Amino acid sequence: MATAELPRPLRGVITAMITPMKGQDLLDVAGLERLIEHILSGGVHGLFILGTTGEAPALKYQLRRELIERTCRQVARRVPVLVGITDTSFAESVSLAGHAEQSGAQAVVVSAPYYFPAAQSELLDYLQDLCKELPLPAFLYNAPTNTHHVFEPATVRRAAEIPTIVGLKDSSANMIYFHSVQELLNDRPDFTRLVGPEELIAEAVMLGGHGSMCGGANFFPRLYVDLYNAAAAGDLQKVRPLHKRVMEISTTIYRVGKHESSYLQGLKCAVSLVVIGSDLVAEPFRSFGAAERERVQEHLRALGVLAATRFGDRSAIPT
Amino acid sequence: MATAELPRPLRGVITAMITPMKGQDLLDVAGLERLIEHILSGGVHGLFILGTTGEAPALKYQLRRELIERTCRQVARRVPVLVGITDTSFAESVSLAGHAEQSGAQAVVVSAPYYFPAAQSELLDYLQDLCKELPLPAFLYNAPTNTHHVFEPATVRRAAEIPTIVGLKDSSANMIYFHSVQELLNDRPDFTRLVGPEELIAEAVMLGGHGSMCGGANFFPRLYVDLYNAAAAGDLQKVRPLHKRVMEISTTIYRVGKHESSYLQGLKCAVSLVVIGSDLVAEPFRSFGAAERERVQEHLRALGVLAATRFGDRSAIPT
Amino acid sequence: MATAELPRPLRGVITAMITPMKGQDLLDVAGLERLIEHILSGGVHGLFILGTTGEAPALKYQLRRELIERTCRQVARRVPVLVGITDTSFAESVSLAGHAEQSGAQAVVVSAPYYFPAAQSELLDYLQDLCKELPLPAFLYNAPTNTHHVFEPATVRRAAEIPTIVGLKDSSANMIYFHSVQELLNDRPDFTRLVGPEELIAEAVMLGGHGSMCGGANFFPRLYVDLYNAAAAGDLQKVRPLHKRVMEISTTIYRVGKHESSYLQGLKCAVSLVVIGSDLVAEPFRSFGAAERERVQEHLRALGVLAATRFGDRSAIPT
Amino acid sequence: MATAELPRPLRGVITAMITPMKGQDLLDVAGLERLIEHILSGGVHGLFILGTTGEAPALKYQLRRELIERTCRQVARRVPVLVGITDTSFAESVSLAGHAEQSGAQAVVVSAPYYFPAAQSELLDYLQDLCKELPLPAFLYNAPTNTHHVFEPATVRRAAEIPTIVGLKDSSANMIYFHSVQELLNDRPDFTRLVGPEELIAEAVMLGGHGSMCGGANFFPRLYVDLYNAAAAGDLQKVRPLHKRVMEISTTIYRVGKHESSYLQGLKCAVSLVVIGSDLVAEPFRSFGAAERERVQEHLRALGVLAATRFGDRSAIPT
Repeated sequence: MATAELPRPLRGVITAMITPMKGQDLLDVAGLERLIEHILSGGVHGLFILGTTGEAPALKYQLRRELIERTCRQVARRVPVLVGITDTSFAESVSLAGHAEQSGAQAVVVSAPYYFPAAQSELLDYLQDLCKELPLPAFLYNAPTNTHHVFEPATVRRAAEIPTIVGLKDSSANMIYFHSVQELLNDRPDFTRLVGPEELIAEAVMLGGHGSMCGGANFFPRLYVDLYNAAAAGDLQKVRPLHKRVMEISTTIYRVGKHESSYLQGLKCAVSLVVIGSDLVAEPFRSFGAAERERVQEHLRALGVLAATRFGDRSAIPT
Repeated sequence: MATAELPRPLRGVITAMITPMKGQDLLDVAGLERLIEHILSGGVHGLFILGTTGEAPALKYQLRRELIERTCRQVARRVPVLVGITDTSFAESVSLAGHAEQSGAQAVVVSAPYYFPAAQSELLDYLQDLCKELPLPAFLYNAPTNTHHVFEPATVRRAAEIPTIVGLKDSSANMIYFHSVQELLNDRPDFTRLVGPEELIAEAVMLGGHGSMCGGANFFPRLYVDLYNAAAAGDLQKVRPLHKRVMEISTTIYRVGKHESSYLQGLKCAVSLVVIGSDLVAEPFRSFGAAERERVQEHLRALGVLAATRFGDRSAIPT
Repeated sequence: MATAELPRPLRGVITAMITPMKGQDLLDVAGLERLIEHILSGGVHGLFILGTTGEAPALKYQLRRELIERTCRQVARRVPVLVGITDTSFAESVSLAGHAEQSGAQAVVVSAPYYFPAAQSELLDYLQDLCKELPLPAFLYNAPTNTHHVFEPATVRRAAEIPTIVGLKDSSANMIYFHSVQELLNDRPDFTRLVGPEELIAEAVMLGGHGSMCGGANFFPRLYVDLYNAAAAGDLQKVRPLHKRVMEISTTIYRVGKHESSYLQGLKCAVSLVVIGSDLVAEPFRSFGAAERERVQEHLRALGVLAATRFGDRSAIPT
Repeated sequence: MATAELPRPLRGVITAMITPMKGQDLLDVAGLERLIEHILSGGVHGLFILGTTGEAPALKYQLRRELIERTCRQVARRVPVLVGITDTSFAESVSLAGHAEQSGAQAVVVSAPYYFPAAQSELLDYLQDLCKELPLPAFLYNAPTNTHHVFEPATVRRAAEIPTIVGLKDSSANMIYFHSVQELLNDRPDFTRLVGPEELIAEAVMLGGHGSMCGGANFFPRLYVDLYNAAAAGDLQKVRPLHKRVMEISTTIYRVGKHESSYLQGLKCAVSLVVIGSDLVAEPFRSFGAAERERVQEHLRALGVLAATRFGDRSAIPT
């Protein structure tokens, strides 16, 4: 993609980028550049920063702004950059969106404000108010595990009539939800439908979805791109072994820890082993200890993502 | 299928049969026979009675027993009959299983007892105790919306080592869950993996699952069989329009009511319009009124499931 | 209380009786008689059988019927007997209620059917249908942890207009709920308001409630009766140390196990140590092992409920 | 209270202050001053700003800082000011706490970060890390409805060993929880135990708690102070009618709207009718319309909080 205009719909693999850090409040600037180049060399179709995988809510605003600027500069319009602006504060969401626009991002991503329980009609009012203030097109982000709100299919249908809402990223993992939204938006081929969990990219794309936001595409972007391409081509023979590898990552690297934070810990640990040095996780979580790190390393070797050499030798790193 | 031995794995469309009733405690015997013949003429691969779609927990035991007997007799081993025996009482589960075996059923289906919150280790102990008493092979039934328990993938993996547990029906609609179970049971090609919601049959079967328990196969069995066959053959071009029809049913007929009971109400109403006369729903629910019934009828016509003639003329009924 | 007519409102301590068992399906008949006499000697104002503490949903129907008969016979109208009839099946609820009436019970207790999610209007319809079939007055049982339904205060207000619904037992532990129901039923001094968790008896009674269903009153009935009397008399100086003892039991004996079943396990273990021999818990749970049993025994000694003698010497047992 | 040192324990009524606004991002400065004077004239023992009632998560940071400064200046150490610093970002929490300290606040209030699901051990680690950075004593804030985390009693017990954690505000409304925490902290009379919902102040204080954070004390502070005093004195005859008035407010003014936001809407509407002019609610919510406002006004009159005169005449306003 030569320029980063936002295609409608947006198709393919959008990497849900981690935020590389050197300290609780310190961006790993060199690591960020290397990470972006690693991701782009895998052929992904877009970058999503400041999402759940990016630990956005855990980062201070100044760091979020720096990340937006540096990412947009490094990407340099090679692919669209989508910026998570979800916040419990309306004003801070708008402010981040303005910063994203000025930095050269192509779109923002908005979930429900996640502190107060809100009714569907209240969420719709909120979206209408918010979109009036946004300088960029917006994707809805259905993330019930984290926000404890669902944008019900009928709400998505109505929100899709707001001109600046251009798509949905669904992280519910509930595929009836995803297919129902597709059915209700049958007349809107321009409205992007992405699944959040990378584990569902195959079926989403084969059955009418446009792609996926993938966390694993931080350390192994090519795998997800290959899977997307196979699914988009309807080549089920190619899809199956690639889907299986995605599930191997999901059931090993993301399950080394005992809590739900294991996904973040495992992913950041894998990225640190494959691409960049630090696996620092923001509060309220901690990075894996040595034992867990060793297990991730073994899984990476078994998956062929890390050569069976000593740590540090990245000559055989896949993209 | 000439005899109803239980294949391992069990593949295809298993109709999650409704329970046709003439009164709160009265089976519609003639309706049951007609319904079974309608379902079987559609080419399904099995029958699942006394599940959630069968409203089992709402039925008195005597009626459950009568349904088991009459269904097995009518089916006459043309396809396997699976019987839901889930109960909050261990002894009543065992008793129903004995009745199922004596009536000629091929397997039972067991979810978690759904009153007391229980830990995964307690669920596993329960399954081990229960299976010692069961005279038939058993399928696990992951049904968190109704039981408020999840059989976590690691629990399924361990339960699969109990010799009489032969498969899983997953009704969670969470496809990460389903794929994770498949990955953990990768070495067990004999262990049946079915999805519960019919909306997910396409992806489940294309990505390694064995089939689905479908409620819509009560009134339109051929649709789900065709979809299963296309998915099993990996014929994505055929899958897509059939999957779309399944989603049309899901987003219209099952959504006419305003509460979660709408699925049961809509399904029973559709069956009553297409196959048999009564759409009586058991307490705590009620059947649709005239307005909702009219809307179901319109949807059925739009779907081509009901000829555009007056109600009662079933000459053009699909199977 | 000479005869067991049902007072309106019903005031005092109603023991939520455990079900003493000799085997998974075998009532401990001698133990039941001893238990009832132990409970009644403590001065309680009623007996509630087949509730959550009674493990009703886990028991087969025949055992539930036997328990109803034997309990009513043993109590011999000394106090009112309330019988839990909640069931997912309308017909089985009605059938149990008939058995309760014939056995001489004074009332039944009904929660929401606990398998299918239901809306408030559906629950109200259900109660109206059910009460037409019940031969005894009924208490509502708000038990969201187990049934996953709440009878919202407005629903209770409307249900209270059904003539045979005479009260509410609230097990939510949410005291805003309890006070809200009281406020909405301000004009109905005849409508009984009980809290379920024994830990809340003091505040419920001091602030307008009529009493509590107490599980701890199986092994230490006098404590709860004393606390009720102090609260009913508005004697805060007496209330405080008794409330503290109730909380000591709650935070020790009921918390020896690691899962939510710990309450049932700890309570049955305490009863077995203080009153009767077996602490068998019904599936899906198991009784405490020796280590946990030893810890319960130590707690009972520390609480002065069990004399510091060897097990079996019950000379110093409190009532 | 002449100076605002923080008593240990902190006893009494702490008003959970609303944030008076003139626009989505504009503090109502004159309204704030009038509101504070109204509240203090009612005799409350402290002020809690930037909690749930203060809509903190919905406010931009600059407004939060301004509110902290202006409140501390206006209060001028007449009572302790507690500042909610809960944030999904560790760094922003610390930053707000620093601002609170510099502005002259006496303590901060911390709940669990509310985006990522976290285990109890992770929450404890988080608290330990956070408290190292805080310049003021901290209260834990158990607010599961909003944060979807519970600080389990055992976690509170361990957190209480962190020297700068001086108390707990429990907003769960689950009084077993509150009493359990009290029992586990029996040896810590210095550790403050407050309930969040004002509806529970009577029982909390009569049974060993130290007070309550009350939203209703924005417009009717004297009522809650009187109730606290009666409960602290153990005067049950005085407690009962005051508790009843609190429940009248809870079941009328806070229930005029149909969604959960009704509490915020009703409270801000009542404050605007009794004390200050605007009832603006922050996004994602909206203020009541004219019909709801009229109903609140009628309730206020019926409660005697607003004289039966035309709006604007505040001559008979209670404090």
